[in-house]
Amino acid sequence: MLLYIIYLIAISAEAMSGAIMGIRREMDLFGICLIGTVAALGGGTVRDILIGHYPLGWVAHPEYLAFTICAAIVTAVAARKMHHFKSAFLIVDALGLVAFTIIGCDIARGFAHFNPFVVVIFGMITGVFGGLLRDVLCNEIPLVLQREVYASVSLVTGGLYVGMLWLNIDASISTLTALGVGFLFRLLAIRYHWTLPKFNDKDIRGFE
Amino acid sequence: MLLYIIYLIAISAEAMSGAIMGIRREMDLFGICLIGTVAALGGGTVRDILIGHYPLGWVAHPEYLAFTICAAIVTAVAARKMHHFKSAFLIVDALGLVAFTIIGCDIARGFAHFNPFVVVIFGMITGVFGGLLRDVLCNEIPLVLQREVYASVSLVTGGLYVGMLWLNIDASISTLTALGVGFLFRLLAIRYHWTLPKFNDKDIRGFE
Amino acid sequence: MLLYIIYLIAISAEAMSGAIMGIRREMDLFGICLIGTVAALGGGTVRDILIGHYPLGWVAHPEYLAFTICAAIVTAVAARKMHHFKSAFLIVDALGLVAFTIIGCDIARGFAHFNPFVVVIFGMITGVFGGLLRDVLCNEIPLVLQREVYASVSLVTGGLYVGMLWLNIDASISTLTALGVGFLFRLLAIRYHWTLPKFNDKDIRGFE
Repeated sequence: MLLYIIYLIAISAEAMSGAIMGIRREMDLFGICLIGTVAALGGGTVRDILIGHYPLGWVAHPEYLAFTICAAIVTAVAARKMHHFKSAFLIVDALGLVAFTIIGCDIARGFAHFNPFVVVIFGMITGVFGGLLRDVLCNEIPLVLQREVYASVSLVTGGLYVGMLWLNIDASISTLTALGVGFLFRLLAIRYHWTLPKFNDKDIRGFE
Repeated sequence: MLLYIIYLIAISAEAMSGAIMGIRREMDLFGICLIGTVAALGGGTVRDILIGHYPLGWVAHPEYLAFTICAAIVTAVAARKMHHFKSAFLIVDALGLVAFTIIGCDIARGFAHFNPFVVVIFGMITGVFGGLLRDVLCNEIPLVLQREVYASVSLVTGGLYVGMLWLNIDASISTLTALGVGFLFRLLAIRYHWTLPKFNDKDIRGFE
Repeated sequence: MLLYIIYLIAISAEAMSGAIMGIRREMDLFGICLIGTVAALGGGTVRDILIGHYPLGWVAHPEYLAFTICAAIVTAVAARKMHHFKSAFLIVDALGLVAFTIIGCDIARGFAHFNPFVVVIFGMITGVFGGLLRDVLCNEIPLVLQREVYASVSLVTGGLYVGMLWLNIDASISTLTALGVGFLFRLLAIRYHWTLPKFNDKDIRGFE
């Protein structure tokens, strides 16, 4: 239930961030709503297509679409004011990343033959692929592949959650612990500009 | 039956438009055929994957692939002459957009639990996502997100069609009405350069 | 069995080529591993989603993910040395293209209603779409659409394989013949810089 409320808040926040990217690329109202929706619901959609899990979330619950479209329209109208909420947005986005991950793990766990390692991967796909599709549609190299500890937060959250469940720890405790640790990890990563190792080497010779 | 003939003409026209984009980006014959095919059949393919509706149209009817590949090859050979048919192309494209939308709504309606709002969305995905995938493969921000009343025509056509069926109006009458109104709407949008509101603001501050 | 060993070597090689593209685009370790994995397993994943064939290969066999992730990490660490193995890489890549194609045809043939033409298409999708997705994520026009005889090798290999099976030739003989001919075709295409016809014409007038 807590997860569900966080989920609705988080898809609205992701839709807003997608809408802002659309506005910056001179998209019209349709494009803004589509980018916002893809950013918010794309991760879960990719997960369900990779699993073969039908109907998709937004097909069974069209109200999700209503949330993302409204959030995108509000953003389009109030775009000049949105940056005042930057800190609030970063917090909600961190919460969303962690909640998406746990929800994704839960859905993947419903398929009995899934390896725990694969369950964590599906949690990460749920958390990360909405933003990745958003960036592809905006014709950018996805941010998540280049910068910041973002996907790593998702992998740690999912690993912790699945590991605790595997140790037969109570589901509510596992959820709250993973939610709290992942959220804190993401906030610390933002605060202290943590990054993964890079191999900065544009001049490297490839195979082509 | 009328829809089926329009469908075959429309996928050929979409394959031609895709092929021209491929030629402009210096693709080889394989690339031209692939971009043409994706432009023509990509919308229906995305719809069927999102629904979980198998086998896909072009898997059950490989003749669709023959149509799109032939259209792409003809375009490659006759590329210098194609712009003479620009008006004819715009008309066929408008007809295709509307026919794709109605066919997409029909397939989505076959899934009893689908909300009418979701059915209209699937009609729009059928009409619009072929061009969107074409643009992603050509490394462009999809045109449909930035310009013109195109997706809106699809949404109006689908909404009218689904609405009339919901009111128990005869299926043939609903089809012809939606086809006519949507087609006219698209032609007027081209003729008078209608656009959706934009929020032209490259300088807007985002959340990143 | 031979195919399986070739498959494991080939996904490792594709993961390495993907990883190098990621390094060049200044991706972090997560991005490098993801691009490598998409390059290696993306073709089979797209094929299975288009067929509706679940569970996906890497979901049923998570060890594939372990192979691609390890290959990507090794590449990241040893990136400066990788170009010494360029020839070896090209040979393994050619072998992989041919093996992916035959495996893809085999899986598509398991669906009794599939037309042989469609089976060959699915073989090509298996061989080619991993690299295509890799390039989309790296924000490039996919190389396979522009250059070299690559997809054509896949189509010839698949056509030969499916044709021999259709003539009731023994499966092992068909596999080895298609593997050998396709591999040789690819090496000759590299050696003599064979290309498909192009219609180099940036100035061509389109329909937009």
